[in-house]
Amino acid sequence: MHRTIGVVGGMGPWATLDFFEKVLRATPARRDQEHLRLIIDNNPKIPDRGPAILGDGEDPTPALVATARNVEAAGADLIVIPCNTAHHFYQAIQAAVRVPVLHIMREVAGAASRRFTRLGRVGLLATRATVATGLYQDAFRLLGAEVVVPDERGQEVIDRLIYAIKAQGVDDALRSAGVAEGRGLNRAGAEAIILGCTELPLVLGEDTLGLPILDSNLILAEVAVGLATSAEPLPAPVRV
Amino acid sequence: MHRTIGVVGGMGPWATLDFFEKVLRATPARRDQEHLRLIIDNNPKIPDRGPAILGDGEDPTPALVATARNVEAAGADLIVIPCNTAHHFYQAIQAAVRVPVLHIMREVAGAASRRFTRLGRVGLLATRATVATGLYQDAFRLLGAEVVVPDERGQEVIDRLIYAIKAQGVDDALRSAGVAEGRGLNRAGAEAIILGCTELPLVLGEDTLGLPILDSNLILAEVAVGLATSAEPLPAPVRV
Repeated sequence: MHRTIGVVGGMGPWATLDFFEKVLRATPARRDQEHLRLIIDNNPKIPDRGPAILGDGEDPTPALVATARNVEAAGADLIVIPCNTAHHFYQAIQAAVRVPVLHIMREVAGAASRRFTRLGRVGLLATRATVATGLYQDAFRLLGAEVVVPDERGQEVIDRLIYAIKAQGVDDALRSAGVAEGRGLNRAGAEAIILGCTELPLVLGEDTLGLPILDSNLILAEVAVGLATSAEPLPAPVRV
Repeated sequence: MHRTIGVVGGMGPWATLDFFEKVLRATPARRDQEHLRLIIDNNPKIPDRGPAILGDGEDPTPALVATARNVEAAGADLIVIPCNTAHHFYQAIQAAVRVPVLHIMREVAGAASRRFTRLGRVGLLATRATVATGLYQDAFRLLGAEVVVPDERGQEVIDRLIYAIKAQGVDDALRSAGVAEGRGLNRAGAEAIILGCTELPLVLGEDTLGLPILDSNLILAEVAVGLATSAEPLPAPVRV
């Protein structure tokens, strides 16, 4: 008996689509009925997370909480949020529902610890707001790994790239500039790169970057499929 | 103010993913918040529609009705079912909810009447069960168009192709056999081909078939986006 995955989605919608595809690819299935049930609330009307965190935007917490409650009411046994920046509001979301909400930074750190026996430095490509929250820095500190991030000019490139993906307007020059930032982190000692924004795997990969990546959207999908197909009890919601 | 699109999905999940992508592509948006809210219940546990129609399978009506009610309760203003064969159960689904449920055959016929000034013969590639229901034949008769379908051996090829798409196991030979069936319908007088199964656009297109196609999944997505972004009243549910 499979569990149903609830998706607090739409942040952005292309990243939710990519998450859905990664769930399908990660599911061992030869026919419809062997696939997993997902309740996806693709709610792009949720206010932008970045400005809210950086100081001057509408608070997305009420919309995030309402969307999580909506997928729970529709039958979700566990919830994922395929948007890294939204995890700044994780505690309020988890507190609002009875089912466990996966935490993307913890899952990425968990995947990193399984994949690398020792990780000294890891690069982070993410929104300025995600970098500012320190959530990846905290999660990887527990592994003894240091997170390195682009400089001010580089962060501007990454933010521009992320918003261009949302607008379906990425050109070769911008993509190349994003690749250059990843390689720059590698020269600064990063042995792997966290794609810590669910838009970034749509344009960056191990083939383009030429070094190991931790794709936060893929990791979240694989963990969700593992839990949904497992006969083990789900982890209890983390209350803080 | 946009309307929310409810999706009775999972039949199959790859077709639901394709529908989602077609909605995103059809939506004029430069940022997350300009995109549409969708409530997708990707419920691949719904029993297979084909065997139920052809005589020896579990009735999917209760699961279809429950899934439609679920997306309505979660906030859908209109409902789509990106599975042609499921439309055999359309009346029961529409009767179970207050919001309008689009009817894919009527929408494909409507798109055909806008695209072709006169259509004498149209080919239908669909599941054996969809062909047997006569739903496309009825919808196109209203346009004065005759629907032509593959012969027994050809229908076996198309059914095999559809189930292979669900299993992500299409090889070149099977794809070529599907293309040959479409071209055979063209030689039998079809001026266009209805891809009357939402799995088929994943492997067949105008480029491969070399003749005009009516992609039922794309048409459903475009109509849904048009209604969701329109300021006009929605069409009333069709009660029969």
